[in-house]
Amino acid sequence: MKKPNIVVLGAGYGGIMTTVKLQKSLGVNEANISLVNKNDYHYQTTWLHEVSAGTVHQDQARIAIKDVINQHKVNFVQDTVVEIKPGENKVKLQNSELEYDYLVIGLGFESATFGIPGLEENAFMINDINSSRLIREHLDYNFAEFHKDNNPSRLNIVVGGGGFTGIEFVGELANRIPELCKEYDIDKSQVRIINIEGAPTVLPGFDPELVEYAMNSLEARGVEFVTGALLKESKPESVVYEKDGKLNEIPTLTTIWAAGVKANTIVEKSGFETNRGKIQVRPDLRSPEYDNVFVVGDCALIMNEENGRPYPPTAQIAIQQSGIVAHNVVALIKGHELEAFEYKPLGTLASLGHNDAMGVVFGDKKLFGWKATFMKKMSDNRYLLKLGGVGLMLKKGKFNFFY
Amino acid sequence: MKKPNIVVLGAGYGGIMTTVKLQKSLGVNEANISLVNKNDYHYQTTWLHEVSAGTVHQDQARIAIKDVINQHKVNFVQDTVVEIKPGENKVKLQNSELEYDYLVIGLGFESATFGIPGLEENAFMINDINSSRLIREHLDYNFAEFHKDNNPSRLNIVVGGGGFTGIEFVGELANRIPELCKEYDIDKSQVRIINIEGAPTVLPGFDPELVEYAMNSLEARGVEFVTGALLKESKPESVVYEKDGKLNEIPTLTTIWAAGVKANTIVEKSGFETNRGKIQVRPDLRSPEYDNVFVVGDCALIMNEENGRPYPPTAQIAIQQSGIVAHNVVALIKGHELEAFEYKPLGTLASLGHNDAMGVVFGDKKLFGWKATFMKKMSDNRYLLKLGGVGLMLKKGKFNFFY
Repeated sequence: MKKPNIVVLGAGYGGIMTTVKLQKSLGVNEANISLVNKNDYHYQTTWLHEVSAGTVHQDQARIAIKDVINQHKVNFVQDTVVEIKPGENKVKLQNSELEYDYLVIGLGFESATFGIPGLEENAFMINDINSSRLIREHLDYNFAEFHKDNNPSRLNIVVGGGGFTGIEFVGELANRIPELCKEYDIDKSQVRIINIEGAPTVLPGFDPELVEYAMNSLEARGVEFVTGALLKESKPESVVYEKDGKLNEIPTLTTIWAAGVKANTIVEKSGFETNRGKIQVRPDLRSPEYDNVFVVGDCALIMNEENGRPYPPTAQIAIQQSGIVAHNVVALIKGHELEAFEYKPLGTLASLGHNDAMGVVFGDKKLFGWKATFMKKMSDNRYLLKLGGVGLMLKKGKFNFFY
Repeated sequence: MKKPNIVVLGAGYGGIMTTVKLQKSLGVNEANISLVNKNDYHYQTTWLHEVSAGTVHQDQARIAIKDVINQHKVNFVQDTVVEIKPGENKVKLQNSELEYDYLVIGLGFESATFGIPGLEENAFMINDINSSRLIREHLDYNFAEFHKDNNPSRLNIVVGGGGFTGIEFVGELANRIPELCKEYDIDKSQVRIINIEGAPTVLPGFDPELVEYAMNSLEARGVEFVTGALLKESKPESVVYEKDGKLNEIPTLTTIWAAGVKANTIVEKSGFETNRGKIQVRPDLRSPEYDNVFVVGDCALIMNEENGRPYPPTAQIAIQQSGIVAHNVVALIKGHELEAFEYKPLGTLASLGHNDAMGVVFGDKKLFGWKATFMKKMSDNRYLLKLGGVGLMLKKGKFNFFY
């Protein structure tokens, strides 16, 4: 009997965890497992705001794929996915083509710019290691350049979006700016961090008490908030927003767009039936059209029956899904029963710099300050433990609890 | 009797050492000493190629002025010199005006671009802490940006000038590039370091054996030399040079101009009689026109009687001059005999990265490799010892002899 080919596309949270679970459940004689990823590393998307601000080095936020997969069991293919051909059970890569019996799509997200002019060309995005490292270097470079031309737009940092990522990023920035000022001999009072949010308040959907806590913490460290304001255009040397029907322009060389993501467009381009660009999966996380195609993470759409809206794309849900996807792939191969996915919300914690955070855990318990920071770092460490054991956790974990 | 005012302009090698010697020789009741400098720090001009390459941090290459002057004896004025009015014994600063009885001009150098089009606008210069830190950040930034557009001109680094500074800089770069490649996930083979020199060989004036040693060491680490080539134009995205009557263009976003310096133009603008932009000083280092004006360092021109050409502007000659200037200022105040300056060449060592160097010491002894590196670092440490004692040497010295 021919060994089935399992192909996992993407080594983000969903893809890498699915792979790690598959390699534990299947013997080398039971299946060929291939993992396809553009880079030879997995990275922590939820830490990219720290890489962008320069408070965490990219090497702490990424993990060599060969360090977490068993290369005797998993064939790692470093390549870029060009197209999925679900009708032919094939995946076209930039440099080759793969055939599969079972496919797991974990291709993650892209920035969504909603057609706002200039964002693609002029704004920075917190998308991956490369784009985040570039933000860090862009900040450094402009602080260094400031001595050449004294152009104040070099020191105005505009963050579009006061959602989860935008707020976590300005929190890191608020901690980082004093260090940058010291490194580049710049007076701190010359630097501005401006957060622009379309909703009447930042962190829409969060408990008002948490929102107030976050805004107080950030404003105390110099962050300026402009709420109820829509970003209209990003120009090479400024950004334009509309508030109360009036257009305003902020001179800046640094606009970071953190206000929207969408599923990887390869999904739509490959002809899958989509809802908001995603594949609305069956309870067992398979695509509605193909019995041998699973979707994990940001490309999967699952409705929250309670409010009729999709669950937001988070690392937490991707990691939870990976358990069911791995189980169900194995079940198909071995002829066992498939399981249905059920999301268990474990809480949400937003960092506000390395020494402050807030959020909700255990259903409705609000946490603030060092307790929230501690819980958030512990949860990050727990993920590393699950992914690669104690060694990986000690190597890449966050243990700076007390400063 | 009114205490005389001594004003020292510039806290480079000549100015700061003159000030330190004056404060040792004169009591608070004997003179008012003022030191004027744009920044609140002195920096090691001879280390700027390392700051530029990112191999030495700017904080190691600079020294807070308050750490080396005795603030009870010396009044430090942080300001920029606008004009010297030697007829009125006054110095106009940006924010005030100073009167002097004795003046010491130690205003250092500027880059000379010889009218080559585009250099001022598009090329980088290794002039001071700000401009050097900017080169370091520019390199980092372009390596980070490379992932965005794959533009190979981001990885072509062109250094105009194969003289002392140009060669020392490419030596540091050759060491730094592998680190940068690791930091930014770039294949080393994609990076080029190109040194362009007008003379038929680099390091004109150096012993041929030393030149060969330097070129071998640098070529082995990937540096490309284009000699007998004149830089004709620096454009925003390329550099043009002429060789054998033919124009060539290298696509690059990074041109560093290290091929020419001139004395601070304030000297000429202030109406001093100049020769090649410098004040050709009397043997006692006074200006030929004014009995109370001394010149130290790069603004002073002294002829080498042996070959009829001026001594090149170096840290070594500036530091030697400071002893005579300080002595002669004190002599004028106390009515003693003035001394004549005599240059004692102590040798020349050029670094080729932190772990290689070459040069001549003790008149004609050639040194290569680790011995030359050791001697050069020891000489740097000796300067710090003279400037600020053992504490300063230990704090800012170079003790990385063995790697």
